[in-house]
Amino acid sequence: MKRSGGTDAEKRRAGERAAAAVSDGDVVGLGTGSTAAAAIRALGRRVDSGLDARAIPTSHQSRALAREAGIPLLTLEEATPDLAIDGADRIAIPDRDGSPVLIKGGGAAHTREKLVDSAAERFLVVADSTKLTDCLDSPVPVEVLPDAVPVVERRLSALGGDPTLRAAERKDGPVVTDNGNLVIDCAFGPVDDPDSLAADIAALPGVLDHGLFVGLADVVYVGTDDGVDVYRSGD
Amino acid sequence: MKRSGGTDAEKRRAGERAAAAVSDGDVVGLGTGSTAAAAIRALGRRVDSGLDARAIPTSHQSRALAREAGIPLLTLEEATPDLAIDGADRIAIPDRDGSPVLIKGGGAAHTREKLVDSAAERFLVVADSTKLTDCLDSPVPVEVLPDAVPVVERRLSALGGDPTLRAAERKDGPVVTDNGNLVIDCAFGPVDDPDSLAADIAALPGVLDHGLFVGLADVVYVGTDDGVDVYRSGD
Repeated sequence: MKRSGGTDAEKRRAGERAAAAVSDGDVVGLGTGSTAAAAIRALGRRVDSGLDARAIPTSHQSRALAREAGIPLLTLEEATPDLAIDGADRIAIPDRDGSPVLIKGGGAAHTREKLVDSAAERFLVVADSTKLTDCLDSPVPVEVLPDAVPVVERRLSALGGDPTLRAAERKDGPVVTDNGNLVIDCAFGPVDDPDSLAADIAALPGVLDHGLFVGLADVVYVGTDDGVDVYRSGD
Repeated sequence: MKRSGGTDAEKRRAGERAAAAVSDGDVVGLGTGSTAAAAIRALGRRVDSGLDARAIPTSHQSRALAREAGIPLLTLEEATPDLAIDGADRIAIPDRDGSPVLIKGGGAAHTREKLVDSAAERFLVVADSTKLTDCLDSPVPVEVLPDAVPVVERRLSALGGDPTLRAAERKDGPVVTDNGNLVIDCAFGPVDDPDSLAADIAALPGVLDHGLFVGLADVVYVGTDDGVDVYRSGD
């Protein structure tokens, strides 16, 4: 899957703004990917300066980054996150009231991300400006049990999708997730009814979770040339 | 979880009746549990007598039984099952047209069972007479990622359920599934709207699959004192 660009400065601004929203005593869910990484580094600097915060990572990557940044770690068994900070591959901001809809999973971490992000009291999304879209037409990542791939591919096609098993680079064969499963990227064209598509994919046998995040994001921080644009969920 | 009884003779009768429904050249999905095991042994005897059938197992147990019974094995990557034969812990037969609703997962194999059973052209359920019920009020097994347990338990409670992590016997700690995950048995009392509950549980982050099988069973063979009762899906 092609990961989109966005400037490092935009990612850094969005990450710093989200890290600034963490309060003393908070438990923070830490997302995966380059913009979440910017937030983790910014949060680490605040912890260095005396902030009392602990974190629940969503992946091998975010666990390692948090450890490097000196943020004390917890598990979901030990605590519930007060807030989660996570990136997104595509973000559709609704015209009216309602929650932004995200497509996540370019980094193959969406199952644990959704687990942590949805468990948090507040979910803050961080992104560079290239992630905003009017039309959710990029493929939806779907994590599946390894031997479920052919069955799930047929079912995704029946839902109108065009499924492709994600191939790895720097490893023979397919991408394997941190949970030991595989990822199908499924192109649906423009997603008009993300709620309904999310339920349809979730109900497929062999599917762990998919990258459509509907009704979860509370705030979206989008880094720009010279600042941060803030979008709040209308409901 | 307490597994219910039922006589061996009833299980054998149901298993033999289902094995008799296999035709030359069929690929058969093989369920897990004592009644499915009776069907596997009966199918093995037919293969011994010259039937050309191959099988896709749903678990370590059914793979081993099929191998012992001399049934050639395939994977879901290699073939689509023409029919699946599987047991159930509870079976509600609808008064009118419609498909029987099953609760499965007492053997912790329901995720792969649903994958194989739902991929099959026809799904034949085999059971002894103690499995029939008018009221689906036994706990629903839910397979979850290990670190998702506390989050999923809270969500199941919010859906009106009473969740219990399944403890193992002959192993310290919890039951671990063939997929490496844990099982929560969630009591909901009588399940009035299994379709809606199935969708709600499937949508929970951290859940692989649950034991409600709605709209999947085509035929139910129930062993009795002196024969087999047959129920066919009305739709």
